[in-house]
Amino acid sequence: MKKKYFLFVFALAIAWLFISPAVFAQYEKTEESGDKLAYVKQQPYETVKVTTPAGKVVKNVILMIGDGMGLTQVSTAWVANHGNLNIDNFPVIGLKRTYAANKLITDSGAAGTALATGKKTNYHSVGVDTAGNSIPSLTDLASEKGLSTAVVVTCNLSDATPSAFCASNKDRDNEEEIAADYLNCNVDYIFGGGRNQFYKRKDGRNLFKEMEAKGYQVCFTWEETAKIETGKVFSVLDDGQLPLYPERGEVFKDATLHALSLLSGSEKGFFAMFEGSRIDDCGHWHDIPALINEMADFDQTIGRVLQWAEKDGETLVIVLADHETGGLTLLGGDISKGEVKGHYSTGSHSGIHVPVYAWGPGAEEFAGIYENTDIFNKIAGLLKLK
Amino acid sequence: MKKKYFLFVFALAIAWLFISPAVFAQYEKTEESGDKLAYVKQQPYETVKVTTPAGKVVKNVILMIGDGMGLTQVSTAWVANHGNLNIDNFPVIGLKRTYAANKLITDSGAAGTALATGKKTNYHSVGVDTAGNSIPSLTDLASEKGLSTAVVVTCNLSDATPSAFCASNKDRDNEEEIAADYLNCNVDYIFGGGRNQFYKRKDGRNLFKEMEAKGYQVCFTWEETAKIETGKVFSVLDDGQLPLYPERGEVFKDATLHALSLLSGSEKGFFAMFEGSRIDDCGHWHDIPALINEMADFDQTIGRVLQWAEKDGETLVIVLADHETGGLTLLGGDISKGEVKGHYSTGSHSGIHVPVYAWGPGAEEFAGIYENTDIFNKIAGLLKLK
Repeated sequence: MKKKYFLFVFALAIAWLFISPAVFAQYEKTEESGDKLAYVKQQPYETVKVTTPAGKVVKNVILMIGDGMGLTQVSTAWVANHGNLNIDNFPVIGLKRTYAANKLITDSGAAGTALATGKKTNYHSVGVDTAGNSIPSLTDLASEKGLSTAVVVTCNLSDATPSAFCASNKDRDNEEEIAADYLNCNVDYIFGGGRNQFYKRKDGRNLFKEMEAKGYQVCFTWEETAKIETGKVFSVLDDGQLPLYPERGEVFKDATLHALSLLSGSEKGFFAMFEGSRIDDCGHWHDIPALINEMADFDQTIGRVLQWAEKDGETLVIVLADHETGGLTLLGGDISKGEVKGHYSTGSHSGIHVPVYAWGPGAEEFAGIYENTDIFNKIAGLLKLK
Repeated sequence: MKKKYFLFVFALAIAWLFISPAVFAQYEKTEESGDKLAYVKQQPYETVKVTTPAGKVVKNVILMIGDGMGLTQVSTAWVANHGNLNIDNFPVIGLKRTYAANKLITDSGAAGTALATGKKTNYHSVGVDTAGNSIPSLTDLASEKGLSTAVVVTCNLSDATPSAFCASNKDRDNEEEIAADYLNCNVDYIFGGGRNQFYKRKDGRNLFKEMEAKGYQVCFTWEETAKIETGKVFSVLDDGQLPLYPERGEVFKDATLHALSLLSGSEKGFFAMFEGSRIDDCGHWHDIPALINEMADFDQTIGRVLQWAEKDGETLVIVLADHETGGLTLLGGDISKGEVKGHYSTGSHSGIHVPVYAWGPGAEEFAGIYENTDIFNKIAGLLKLK
């Protein structure tokens, strides 16, 4: 038995020798001084070039949120990928104000609520107005009108951004209450992390069983999820958040494309929200290599979504941030080497306006300077949800 | 004699008692910790609302450069002015990459040259390509085609941004050589600071006399300048840069509007470059109150320019930065009080993309994400200069 155990550990160690360079070789730390850091990215990924469809009918809307992805995060990712991003395809740019009802520097709860419901709410609230009343989100309204819906994230499903679309609570920290709201959210395709809030609960409920009773196909692995070809999906791949990229593999891209393939059958169209959730964590941690990895996963997913939308021809794609995280500055670097040197100014969020990138039919609506709540208004208007 | 001297100083002191609150009352420092600072702005200024003209003919182009004015500088000014800026009128937004030919983090020389000539050049070069060859700027090309031209700045005329439009030199620090290039720039209305380089020179030349011989009306005060109703203007109001706002008074607005009134008679149209030059200095100094003042002067000038352009109907207005300065983060504040709290990350420039704001006929050309050199290409295309 001991020999078997030894062989197993030995095999793992050998495997690690081969795997670890692939995981970690992409970034080489070249300098460190306080929180001013320089890194080299060695392998850029390929980007795509897509052309905007000529048609003007908006049947589907895809809203892609980079949590904490301010303009410097995008500029930094652009240099790290040797001067090339899929996001460069977007022909229409807007600038969006992010402040909450009661605070200049917002959080993902109030910011997500503004995007999802069109109402400014208090810091740390999700899916409720400033008086605490539940307010309908884009997924609620789309579902009521017979459109299909999807929410795909890499954080806990009970975290702030997905909660703003699927739940209502005065305090985003009430994660068990928020998890229970998924039973009534009617979203067709739900993917993310955070199993614990669904089955290791103070009230003893097993929400997975309840979701099954509601008609969802509940999955705990990507392999199970990928097999589903029709019907409602509730896929939760981790007890907590999904790991950082590339440790989590290609599941964010895969789930996004899987959701699109399931939703594309919808006669009345669909509304989908896909979030690169963990860009925000990198800002809180002041971790530039992690940021570049998360941005690479998000931007590669944007490329796949644009290719899908180019074929579809009736889909509007919007990429934006809820707010900026970390007060990142791009201090130096080298485009040809993909080298970036950056500095974070805060462990929290900042108050800079954030860019909005729009592509496809209806994109021109997203030009100019406006409130975060206008994102809801514009999408609801284009999909005739109001 | 001593009594007279005492009375003079006493009178100055009394005058200061009345003047100083007007100069300094606008900002009240509320907190200081390292280079994290908070300030309160007490008196917001009025902004205007303008509508884009329906016509599609671009006869005139006004390019307004906020030197060092990144997105955080605009966001900060927006909060400081209680959630209100003239820049909010712009319906079209672009994002512009700023890197120089040989350096990710550019300077105003290489950045200004990209805007003025459409060529990326080396750090610290103005109006030359990477081999050091002189290249024509938008003012050169416009002048050749019979359009009127203007350059209005608040820095030395031999400083980097105006030099990129009016001079050619491998090194922006050769300010006396650069000053001499003004004799051949043919710009109709030239306004700024920096007399010393024109008459306190190693070569003993008095360039003011030479400019007069070229047909310019040379002025050293605003009063003289304001009286001019026709012909070429060369107005240099200070030995060095113009003082910071509000100490310099309303001369930036006044000279901008004066230039427009003189240029508006041009049958073939005009190209004008107006620079809020000293926004950049505030970034280098980490001085947020000074930044807010400079942004207030620049944005108020934008308001006046938009009102002028609204009446004109054939003028495209573009507002942009050459690069961001200081790596500013907006850490906190209060919109209703105009309070801002910020942090600067570098004494130099940063590599973040900068926003482009476009208004009027042809504005839609400035949507999307592009190189700083494309600003030249778009303007030259619209004015048929190539």
